[in-house]
Amino acid sequence: MNELTGPKGTRDFAPGEMEVRKKVIKIIEEVFEKANFKKWEGPAIEHFEILTKKSGPEIEKEIYTFKDKAGRKLGLRFDLTTQLSRIIASHPELKKPIKAYSYGKVWRYENPQQGRYREFMQMDIDIFGSESMLCEVELLSIVNQALNKLGLTNFTIFLNNRKVLQGILEELGLKNDEVVQVIRILDKLNKIGEEGVKKELQENNFDEMLFTKIKKILPLNEKDNLKKLKILEEKTKNQLALEGINELKEILDLSSGLDFYDKIAIDLTLARGFDYYTGPIFEVRLNNYQEVGSINGGGRYDNLVELLSGIKTPAVGISFGIERIIDIIDKNPELKNKLLGDELKVLVCYFNENQIKEGFKVVNQLRKEGIICELDLMKRSLKKQLKYANEQNFSKAIFIEEGNKISLKDLKTGEQKQITLSDAIKELKSEL
Amino acid sequence: MNELTGPKGTRDFAPGEMEVRKKVIKIIEEVFEKANFKKWEGPAIEHFEILTKKSGPEIEKEIYTFKDKAGRKLGLRFDLTTQLSRIIASHPELKKPIKAYSYGKVWRYENPQQGRYREFMQMDIDIFGSESMLCEVELLSIVNQALNKLGLTNFTIFLNNRKVLQGILEELGLKNDEVVQVIRILDKLNKIGEEGVKKELQENNFDEMLFTKIKKILPLNEKDNLKKLKILEEKTKNQLALEGINELKEILDLSSGLDFYDKIAIDLTLARGFDYYTGPIFEVRLNNYQEVGSINGGGRYDNLVELLSGIKTPAVGISFGIERIIDIIDKNPELKNKLLGDELKVLVCYFNENQIKEGFKVVNQLRKEGIICELDLMKRSLKKQLKYANEQNFSKAIFIEEGNKISLKDLKTGEQKQITLSDAIKELKSEL
Repeated sequence: MNELTGPKGTRDFAPGEMEVRKKVIKIIEEVFEKANFKKWEGPAIEHFEILTKKSGPEIEKEIYTFKDKAGRKLGLRFDLTTQLSRIIASHPELKKPIKAYSYGKVWRYENPQQGRYREFMQMDIDIFGSESMLCEVELLSIVNQALNKLGLTNFTIFLNNRKVLQGILEELGLKNDEVVQVIRILDKLNKIGEEGVKKELQENNFDEMLFTKIKKILPLNEKDNLKKLKILEEKTKNQLALEGINELKEILDLSSGLDFYDKIAIDLTLARGFDYYTGPIFEVRLNNYQEVGSINGGGRYDNLVELLSGIKTPAVGISFGIERIIDIIDKNPELKNKLLGDELKVLVCYFNENQIKEGFKVVNQLRKEGIICELDLMKRSLKKQLKYANEQNFSKAIFIEEGNKISLKDLKTGEQKQITLSDAIKELKSEL
Repeated sequence: MNELTGPKGTRDFAPGEMEVRKKVIKIIEEVFEKANFKKWEGPAIEHFEILTKKSGPEIEKEIYTFKDKAGRKLGLRFDLTTQLSRIIASHPELKKPIKAYSYGKVWRYENPQQGRYREFMQMDIDIFGSESMLCEVELLSIVNQALNKLGLTNFTIFLNNRKVLQGILEELGLKNDEVVQVIRILDKLNKIGEEGVKKELQENNFDEMLFTKIKKILPLNEKDNLKKLKILEEKTKNQLALEGINELKEILDLSSGLDFYDKIAIDLTLARGFDYYTGPIFEVRLNNYQEVGSINGGGRYDNLVELLSGIKTPAVGISFGIERIIDIIDKNPELKNKLLGDELKVLVCYFNENQIKEGFKVVNQLRKEGIICELDLMKRSLKKQLKYANEQNFSKAIFIEEGNKISLKDLKTGEQKQITLSDAIKELKSEL
C-alpha cells in the first residue's frame, strides 16, 4: 500500500480539482429544480435483499457485501433506482405524481479500468404514479435542456420499448424466462456486435436462426421513425408489441413541437441491461463521442415498487452518466472554458501588518455583498501577494489607503484608481 | 428486517423532505465560495491505517472496518480531517495557502440515539500552509457569516489553545502521554461535570488534587477575555503556555474590528477530543440551545500532514455540525420559514388533451427563463390540476388560450388576465 493514495478503484479530488464537476452538477441540478423535481437521498448502505430485487445476475456479482454485527447481509448501493423504489414503497402517503431527483455515490466491485471506478457518482430523475407517456416526454425535455446548458448539443436520443421486444420474442415462441435472457444478450449488441450476439445466443442453447428471425421482423434499415413503426405494426399481431408501438408513437407525437424532436431515433434493438424495465427505454449518445457509450439511460419500470409494497405504482426514470459527461467536458478546452467562464475575484492587499485588521473588515464586507474575495493569510510581502493574485487568476486588487479611501486595481488592464469602498463595491457588483 | 426501512442507524430522505437540508448546505457553501475556498472530495472507503492516525482510541472503536479481497484492512471514514490530510500530503505541488472545503457522509458505528446516526453529513473548511493566526480569524469570520445567513445569530465562540493546556499540565509535572490522557478527560467537562472529571482522573491513577491544581492556575471566574489571559500570563512560566497565550491574544486583536468579536469567550478548560490538535481550538454553541452541544468545532493541527508526508505543513480547520444545525432550523418555524421563503411556482394547465403539446412548449420556455414550472403528468381534469396546484403551494397558473394568448392567474389573489406569453414571462421574471 502506498500510504498516500486511497484504496484501489477510488479517486481523490484535491482542492481546486473539482471546478468542472461542481459546475456540471450545479447546472443539471438547477434544471431539475426548475422542473419542480424534489431532491431525495438514501444511505450508502442498503439491505442486500433490496439491492438484488430485479437487478439481474450481472450486477449481483459486483455488489460490495458485508454483514453487520447482528449477522444481517448488507451491501453498498450499486445504483439509485432500487433504493428509491424502496423509499417510495415506504411512503404511500406521498401525493402522486412524485417527481424525484438525487445524486450520490454508488459502488461496483469491478476491475478498475480507464475511466471506470469502483466508487462513482450517479444522478437520476424519476417520476412515480403516472402511466402516461407525458412522463417520458417530461424526462426527455429535462435531459435535452440540461445537455444544451452544458454545451453538449450534438446528441441522439435512442428510444425503444421493452413491450415491443418482449411481444416479438413471445410471438417467436419464447417463454418468459427465455425472453428475459434474450433481452440481456441483445443489450450487448452495441458492445459485441451481431456475430457476438449470435454466438452468445447459441451458447445459451437458443435456435441459431433466432437472431435472423428477430432482424426479419424489426425494420432496422428504415431511418424514418414513423415509417419504421408503421412497418413493424404491419408485421406483428402480438398485443403487447402493438401496445409498445402505440406508446412510442405517443412519445413522438407529444414531442413533435419540442426542440429535441429531430434528435429522437427509434432503435428497435435497444434493450438496456436491468430486468426491471417494463415499457419505453431510452439512451442518449453524443454523436461525436460514440466510443464513450451512452451519457443517459433509463426507462419505465412499472412493477418494481409494487414488488416491495404491493401497491401498484407506475414509474419511469432516467440516469445521467455524470462521470462520462464530466470527463468529456474536462478534456474539451472549448466546452470547459465556456462552462467555467471568467470569475470576478478580488484580492485585498496590505502594505504592512498594521493594515491587516482594516483589510479583514473590507474582505468581510465584500463577501457579504456576494463578491469572491480574500486577503493573504501568510503575512507575505506585497510583491508576493500580487504574485499569488496573478497565479490564482484574480481579476482585481484592492489596496488599503489612508482615510476612507481604497485603491481599486484592474489586474488585467493594470488600470488603478482611488475611490471610496462603497463606490468600489457598486462597481464590482455591476460586474457580477 | 422490515424490508421497507433502511439499515439500522441510517436515514432516508424522501422526495420533498430535504428542502431545509438543501438550503442550509447551499447557503453555507456559498459563504465558502465567496471566501475563495476550493472544494475537495475523497472516497467513503479509506485505509484503516490512515483513519487511525492520531484520532485517539475513542474513535477507533467506532470505525466500520472490513477487508478487501486482497486482505487489506479498510474502513468507512469517520471524519473528513484525516482523509484531507492524506490528500494534502499526496499533493505537495499545491500552492500555499490551500483553502479547502468539503461536505460528505461519514460513518460511526455507535448505538443510534435520538439525533445520532451511524451515517451522517459533515462539512469542513481547512487552511494548509500558514502558521499565522490570520487563518484562525479567517475561519471564525466564515463561521460567523454562515451562521448569520442561516438566522442563527445568538451564539458564543469558545476559544482555547492546546499549548496552554499542555504547558500548564507539564508545569504541574505530567509527562507527555499523561498530558494527552488528561486533556481527553478534561474534554468531557461539559458532559460529566467537575465531579465526573475528578472521578475519572482518580480512576486513571492521577493525583486526586490534580483538578484542583489545574483550577487554581486557570482564572475560570474572570469573564473578561483579555484580563483572563493577563492573570494566567502572570501565573505561569512555561514557555509553551506563554506561546499559547500570545496566540490567543493575537486572535483577539485581529478580530477586534469584526462583528463577532463580542461573541468570543476564552474558555481555558475547552479541550476537544481529537489527539491531533496542536494550537488554538474552538467550539461554537448557540446560547438558546445549550442542550444541543456545539454546532461548530475545530482547531489547529500542525503535525498531521507531516506525519504522513514528512513535509512540515501547518493546518487549521473547523467543522460545521450540519446535522444539528439542520435539526434546529427544521424544528423552529420562524427560522424555517425565513430560510425557505416563498418560491414562485407556475402550473401550466390544460382544458383538454389537445392543449398538452402547446402546454409542453410553454413549460419548456418558462424553465429556460429560470421559472419553476410544470404541467400535470397524469392527464387529470382541470379541476384536479388546480387542486394539485393548491396542495403543492403553486403561486400562479397559466391557461392555454386560442391564438397567441395565455391567461395568467394569481392563485393567491384569484386575479386573472389574458396576455401574451412573452409579457407573462416578463412579469414572472420580475418576481424572481
